[in-house]
This record gives sequence, C-alpha cells and structure tokens, in this order.
Amino acid sequence: MRSRALPCVKRFLNEGDHYLISTHINADGDAIGSILALARIIGLVGRSCRIVLHDREVDLKYRFLAGFDRIASYSPSDRLASSVILVDTPNVARIGDVARLIGEEARILNIDHHASNARFGEVNLVDEDACATSELIFGLAKALRLRIDAEMAAQLYTGVMFDTGRFRYSNLRRAFPVAAALLHLGADPAIIAEAVYSRKSYQSVKVLGQALASLEMHFRDRVALMTLPHRALRLAADLDGIVDYALSISGVSVAALLKEQRPNQFRVSLRSRGTFDVNDLARGFEGGGHPNASGCCIEGDAVRVKKVLLKAIRKRLR
Amino acid sequence: MRSRALPCVKRFLNEGDHYLISTHINADGDAIGSILALARIIGLVGRSCRIVLHDREVDLKYRFLAGFDRIASYSPSDRLASSVILVDTPNVARIGDVARLIGEEARILNIDHHASNARFGEVNLVDEDACATSELIFGLAKALRLRIDAEMAAQLYTGVMFDTGRFRYSNLRRAFPVAAALLHLGADPAIIAEAVYSRKSYQSVKVLGQALASLEMHFRDRVALMTLPHRALRLAADLDGIVDYALSISGVSVAALLKEQRPNQFRVSLRSRGTFDVNDLARGFEGGGHPNASGCCIEGDAVRVKKVLLKAIRKRLR
Repeated sequence: MRSRALPCVKRFLNEGDHYLISTHINADGDAIGSILALARIIGLVGRSCRIVLHDREVDLKYRFLAGFDRIASYSPSDRLASSVILVDTPNVARIGDVARLIGEEARILNIDHHASNARFGEVNLVDEDACATSELIFGLAKALRLRIDAEMAAQLYTGVMFDTGRFRYSNLRRAFPVAAALLHLGADPAIIAEAVYSRKSYQSVKVLGQALASLEMHFRDRVALMTLPHRALRLAADLDGIVDYALSISGVSVAALLKEQRPNQFRVSLRSRGTFDVNDLARGFEGGGHPNASGCCIEGDAVRVKKVLLKAIRKRLR
Repeated sequence: MRSRALPCVKRFLNEGDHYLISTHINADGDAIGSILALARIIGLVGRSCRIVLHDREVDLKYRFLAGFDRIASYSPSDRLASSVILVDTPNVARIGDVARLIGEEARILNIDHHASNARFGEVNLVDEDACATSELIFGLAKALRLRIDAEMAAQLYTGVMFDTGRFRYSNLRRAFPVAAALLHLGADPAIIAEAVYSRKSYQSVKVLGQALASLEMHFRDRVALMTLPHRALRLAADLDGIVDYALSISGVSVAALLKEQRPNQFRVSLRSRGTFDVNDLARGFEGGGHPNASGCCIEGDAVRVKKVLLKAIRKRLR
C-alpha cells in the first residue's frame, strides 16, 4: 500500500483506545470479511473494538469466518462512540441506525473502495481502484507489518472473492495477485467458495425453481419477466440473484423479477445489460438504483403490473 | 515449465510437418481452450495442423474464442494422421471416433493433467498438479518463447477458469498466478466469464426451473431428488450442472437428477458430498463414474425409479 493516507491511519490507530467498527446495511461478503479482519488488526496493534451492524440478522453463511460471533446488532441502549472506523460504505447514512452511535465529537476513519465515497472521515483510506475493501484492509495489515494468519487470510479472501463476483467483474488485475497471496497465507478457496455459494436452503432452491418456471419472454426475447406470488415469498429467505437468471439468457437486455410483497403490491427488481437504463425506468415508478440494477414498487395484480411494466419498457426499447 | 519432457516436445514439433490435434468427447472449456491455443502454437513454430473432434456439435458458447471455426467434427472420409497431438485426454479411447484417424505408425504427443493419464504418447507432457491442460499449453508457449497475444491469452484463460470451476476447486495455487499473467497478456476475465457462464437459452433456464420445482428431500434432508419428465427433456439443450443445485442445499450428502430419456427409462445423474460413494451406488445399476459424481440408467416409471433408488441409497447411508 503506497497510500498517502497511511501515516494518518497509523496515527488514528495509535491515538484511539476503543473503536466502534461498522459497515453498510445488508452486510455482504466484502463488508463482513473487512470488519472481521480489521477487528483482528485492532487487536494486533494493542487496541480494543466492538463491531456493531444495523442488520438485525447477519447472513449466517459467513459464520465460518473467525470472529463472526463478535458481530452485534444495533441496540438503542448502546453507548456513544468517540473513535469510529467505517468500512465499505460510501457515506454515513448507509450504516443505518449505527449512525446514532457516532458522537458529535467522534473521529472517523473511512476505509472504502466505492467510487461514490463521500470522504466523510477525518482520515479517508479510499481507493476506488481496489477490487474490494478487503484488499485495502490487506494492504493495511501488510503496511503495519502485522502477521496475517490463516484466519485473517480467509476473512480477506472472502471479501475479494465476493466483490469480484467470484473473479468475474473488473479490477481482477489486482484481485488475482491478492488472492494468490492470501492463498499462500492459508486461505482455502475451495472451502470459502463452498460456504459462500453452495449452502442454500431447501426453500430458497424451491423458490428459485418457481421463479424460473414463471419465466416469460417479450419483445422478441429481449425482455425476460419472472413472477413470485405472495405465498412463495413467505417461504423464501434468500431472493438475491434470482433476477440474474433471467438476465443470463442469451439476447436478453432487460430482466425483471416481480415479487408480490403484499397481496396486490409488487416489489420489482430490474436488471439490464448494456445501455438500457433501468434506473430511469424505475424512477418512473418512484424507484431507483443504478443504470443496470434498480428497483421499484408497483400496485395491482400480477396481470396489471406486468402490463404497466412492459408498456414502460417498450417505450425505452430502441 | 521445468518439465523433462520439454526437449522431447520441441523435437516432436520440429520433426513433424502436419499435425492432427484432438481432445476428449464432449470437449469442455479446458479442452477447447487448449486445442485452440495449441493450434496457434503449431502455426507460430511454422507447422500446420487440423483440429478434429469426435463431437458432432461443439459447444457454441466457446465460439467467441479465436480459431473456433477451425474445429471440425470427425468424418469417416478423413485421412489418416502420422503426427498426432492429444490434449486433456487420459487415454486414446476418450477421443472417440477420432482414434480411427491415428495411423499404426503414428507418433503421438500427449499433453494432459488427469491423474489417470495412461502415458500413451511417444512423448508425454503430463503434469497432474496443473490446474488445467491450458496451464501446460501456456507453459509450453512460454518455454518456446512464443509471443502470447490477447487471443491466445483468452483461449488459455478460458481453460484455467473452466477447469478450476471458476476458481473454486483445488490447485488454485498455480491457477491464480497463471490467471494474473494471462490477464496481463490481454485476456478479459469479465467477457470470458460472461460468455461461458451467462449465456443460457430460454429453454435451458425453463427446464432448470422445472427441475428445481420438482425437488424433494428424503432421509432427514440428507438426500435431494429432482425429476425431469420426457417432455421436458425434449426441449432442453443443456442439462449440465442442474444436479449441482440439489447438492448445494445445506446438509445434503447425496443428490440425484432423474431424466426420463425415453418413456419409462431414466438416466440418473448422481452427486455426493464427502464420503458417500455414488460410484458404488451407480455400479449397483450397471452404471459408474467417480465416488462423488456418477450415473446410471433405471427402467420404470418415475415412482418406481425413485423407490428403487431411495432403497439403494438408504442401504448406504450411515
């Protein structure tokens, strides 16, 4: 790590005593890998910390990582913190309720790789070219000349693997060497991939099947829709990634998953490939997100919601 | 590459004039990446070659690779070859009909990473610790000091990515550095992963949905079965990997996909995790394969086939 922020980070870790560590709502593989490795680093430099997340329930598939049990959920009775480290979050609002624990005079260290990071910290270790926040934590551990054991290597490898979509997205130029280094330090990629990607619940597999079976194609197979009725949603724990199956069909540029959250109220997950802007589409229904991944809510029964959505898509299809 | 076989490989490539290149039946990502890169190498050392596979239809998802159009399917009228290079195949039988093109006096170069490789060549470049045959072809190109351009890098990256299950299986110790090197040489991991993993047909996604919806659990959720009726099979092009969804359920040790190939005749794909030996199970039905991945055929209607199979599984569950 050749970051100019490094001396400031070192000072930040020297001057504090007890740190509050947190990350964004719906903590994912990179967020969890990063906070656990960071907590380890805090211990290695002779300081103490607590980890508090907004999430009521932290994704249990990460419980194989050392230190997972240290993660606590926010409680209004938690005490205010004066030294705070936020990882993998572009702004303070994204940490949800945990923001209430940040005292007015609190000092914040901001470690992140989001391009949209708001540099909200007193010290900002932000590198948008990093493949994952875990890469930055890895760099920090090395810069501090700390011993990275197999447990920390596994935490960091989990983050790198997750945020590259299992070595599929961009920034692999840095991800492969980091992954190789973490493997040599003791991370077991087979065990980690198995834990993160191959332990689904019976119900989530059934519901995936139900969604795929509902698949329908429109506009010369450029648009793929899937629908999950309310009774299916009540069973499913994990709907993440279902919409990507529709987008993976050859020739599809827009994919939507219609989830009936309440009877006659659909939460619509939208994905696109290329230049079709689903953020713009979602905004038309008071939703939003990113140009290739967005969401909104539409009221009505499934027939009406599909009709309304398809009409809006058709207007934007070239 | 520090193989003792290397001088012999060099001589083999010097002494021939025109080479026949082939690989195993049902050529996969590593097989196709390897033969295409090898054909390129043959050209770079000033020799010519033809690529002939047993497969009637080569998996079109690999057509993004340069040279894909050079791959021909076996025809009985093809002429006999005197210089042959077989890649990624443990023995000559696995190349199917192409074996008929190998003349009695033919010289064979054998490049492979299967532990079971039979060393059938005059020259054997076999390294079972390689993550993919593509890794060996990469080493060969480097040892011959050939220029590896972006097209060859993409061919080789495809093989490494495929044979490591997208960086999930063993031997990543060598895979990550090779992947990093190929990326620097111009392979685009995002485009390659997209082509290999994210271009499914509408029908194959529908049939996956049908299979998942049929999922049933037995023996305290340790056994997961899925069934595809004959009418579904007629639609589906690609059933690969469907059974893995059943195995991915938390706690499952044996998974089976029952495919009704003909009315009342089921082809059963078996997968297991850990020590449950599905090869032994399949042998009881005159099938076979590997301890964790095997297959067999069972006659009867779906109800009978499930009953027979579950009975055989129960005997072997500890």
